[in-house]
Amino acid sequence: MEEIKNLVSEIAKKAKRASHILSSAGSTEKNFALKRIAELLEQKRGEIKKENERDLKEAEGLSSSMIDRLILNDKRIDQMIAGIRDVIALNDPVGEVVKMWKRPNGLIIGKMRIPLGVIGIIYESRPNVTIDAGILCIKSGNAVILRGGSEAKFSNRILTEIMREAIKDYIPEDSVQIIPTQEREAINYMLKEEGNIDLIIPRGGEELIRFVVENSKIPVIKHYKGVCHVYVDKQADMEKALKIVINAKTQRPGVCNAMETLLVHKEIADKFLPVAGKELIRRGVEIRGCEETRRIIPEAKPATESDWYEEYLALILAVRVVNSLDEAIEHIRKYGSEHTDSIVTENYSTAMEFIKKVNSSSVMVNASTRFSDGFEYGLGAEIGISTTKIHAFGPMGLEELTTTKFIVFGNGQVRE
Amino acid sequence: MEEIKNLVSEIAKKAKRASHILSSAGSTEKNFALKRIAELLEQKRGEIKKENERDLKEAEGLSSSMIDRLILNDKRIDQMIAGIRDVIALNDPVGEVVKMWKRPNGLIIGKMRIPLGVIGIIYESRPNVTIDAGILCIKSGNAVILRGGSEAKFSNRILTEIMREAIKDYIPEDSVQIIPTQEREAINYMLKEEGNIDLIIPRGGEELIRFVVENSKIPVIKHYKGVCHVYVDKQADMEKALKIVINAKTQRPGVCNAMETLLVHKEIADKFLPVAGKELIRRGVEIRGCEETRRIIPEAKPATESDWYEEYLALILAVRVVNSLDEAIEHIRKYGSEHTDSIVTENYSTAMEFIKKVNSSSVMVNASTRFSDGFEYGLGAEIGISTTKIHAFGPMGLEELTTTKFIVFGNGQVRE
Repeated sequence: MEEIKNLVSEIAKKAKRASHILSSAGSTEKNFALKRIAELLEQKRGEIKKENERDLKEAEGLSSSMIDRLILNDKRIDQMIAGIRDVIALNDPVGEVVKMWKRPNGLIIGKMRIPLGVIGIIYESRPNVTIDAGILCIKSGNAVILRGGSEAKFSNRILTEIMREAIKDYIPEDSVQIIPTQEREAINYMLKEEGNIDLIIPRGGEELIRFVVENSKIPVIKHYKGVCHVYVDKQADMEKALKIVINAKTQRPGVCNAMETLLVHKEIADKFLPVAGKELIRRGVEIRGCEETRRIIPEAKPATESDWYEEYLALILAVRVVNSLDEAIEHIRKYGSEHTDSIVTENYSTAMEFIKKVNSSSVMVNASTRFSDGFEYGLGAEIGISTTKIHAFGPMGLEELTTTKFIVFGNGQVRE
Repeated sequence: MEEIKNLVSEIAKKAKRASHILSSAGSTEKNFALKRIAELLEQKRGEIKKENERDLKEAEGLSSSMIDRLILNDKRIDQMIAGIRDVIALNDPVGEVVKMWKRPNGLIIGKMRIPLGVIGIIYESRPNVTIDAGILCIKSGNAVILRGGSEAKFSNRILTEIMREAIKDYIPEDSVQIIPTQEREAINYMLKEEGNIDLIIPRGGEELIRFVVENSKIPVIKHYKGVCHVYVDKQADMEKALKIVINAKTQRPGVCNAMETLLVHKEIADKFLPVAGKELIRRGVEIRGCEETRRIIPEAKPATESDWYEEYLALILAVRVVNSLDEAIEHIRKYGSEHTDSIVTENYSTAMEFIKKVNSSSVMVNASTRFSDGFEYGLGAEIGISTTKIHAFGPMGLEELTTTKFIVFGNGQVRE
């Protein structure tokens, strides 16, 4: 145990030292380092696939979807390389002055973006997170400590080695490090390194995230779950509503921004639900409805109280008929997860009231919840989606990996 | 114990419910509520002073400085009332759209400021924090749960009652609540209410803050300490340097933005330190210096390694002669607390390098560290100074009590 503690502590200290140099590195140096990573990934395809094979060999007990996420083939390596080119093209957020003003005493005060310092990423299964997290941290001037899952340990290790080798001529090698042991204790020690690690981002199942939140002395940005709603208002355009509902539920049901509950105003339910129900069922969706829904859609199963809280991540949809906008908002507040909620309406005031009163990380009018995503929003990249309001709320891009410091330009001013 | 747990849990739930209404209250309603608080404080001076007397009667064992901070006299009540008028005059941050852009698919996406929800403030001694925290939370649309120290319990209670009575015609009474027991367990239960409380701000000694950080499941914004530096560069203007050094150390030595360590470039030390030393000693400052400092200022005591880490909050100053800008920056990084650091120099490139490389919450050129303060920066108010980089870094005003949600205006868009 003592040994693992020292190992983690040494890694954390090295990361902190690297971050001091990386934080003031220029955009050119950082972009050269990223470009070199892309080149080495290209050159070392063979090695990467070989190490990935070792992980796959040990993966026999895993589900087919987990094995699928684990695979690194040429197409996935191409995607990683393309992702790096995209990040190179993004603006460097570090050093941007977001505001500047002058005080009556002549002091000029500004807020300048700086990196957070050292970021710890604790994740499961998909090895491409190793590259994604690494390049976003580098671009935003943060050193990163990676802690991937045991099922991808060989893949994660080779990808980290490639990054370290690639960057060392431009920025400190220790800007990217991986915890080289799969002992669970290592996570515990990481979470206690509050002097050296500035932020922890867990990416994985709810159990992992809860463990991290409960044991961390370091601030954590987390993403629990997405129970996203679409509310079809009495003044909805039926055609838009149908398109949005089908898309939000079926375009990719296994992700956090897919719709899990459909709310429909009672005055439009008799017209809308028969059509929507038919289309959803035709696409294999199982409907679990309130009594009124079941009257209109006979195929619907009864929804229980727990259905309203459920993140199905599957072709299942809870449907409820509501009496008013207020009832819809109340439902979203009570059962939702503050992720993404959308209203379909042609009424201007209803739309604005929904925007004002629903405080989820994304609130939409006449759009599919599936758009709630860093790339779709034009942030250029995404390190995760935060469902807590502190520091970042919603999709997180490069800017969210920075903070601001106050810069003060004086001319000898002193306080009276 | 069970009883206290239920009590705290009930308060947290009421706060959450109140926050749903308060979060979409208009600026007018919130300002009316604040105005009414000011009026009631004026009317109830007698009662306030009577309750404060009860605290003072029990305060016999406390130090004179603690008793001084506890006193509510007419002058302090006047200050609280003036503070409320100032906050009324500030812009309401809620609903401000900080950015808005259009995507190629026609979606219009913006970031809108919203309140955090429910804020828990855990503080010691000064009862005016009750009013300060209450009004800043109200103005920023957040419900607040107050937990003051036992030494001010009667004062805190009457001030909370006045706020609740004043606001109830405009916004929910439960927007402001106080934990009505001094049992330490109550803090523990507060820190576990992660479903209802969104942010914890501890204000008090380092011991209290560490306790909160180690036991909270809720994000904490904290302020450990201010070990602030002034670095007098070889190309400093001697007159500015002297004014700034005297001001930063002696204008109010007991606060976190006072200078604790002076760094002087070796090429100016022989000219600057004799003058500065004389002026500081004349003002009662005890100097603890490195060897070189002691050669130049014979009255200086020797500084030990621990002096460089010290937040004296008193008329004591650590002084070190350094060989270069890099050595000064290295010292600040190693021993500083990332609070406020200032360089005195006439050299443009040296100034810009200091601004770039020192990542403290406030980095200054030719100004006294004492300016690091929400009011001095023109934020209009201050709920605290954050020395952690997550969410807020440096003085926190109303904006830092908000987050942003994404708002998305569509026209039926679905994802391909």
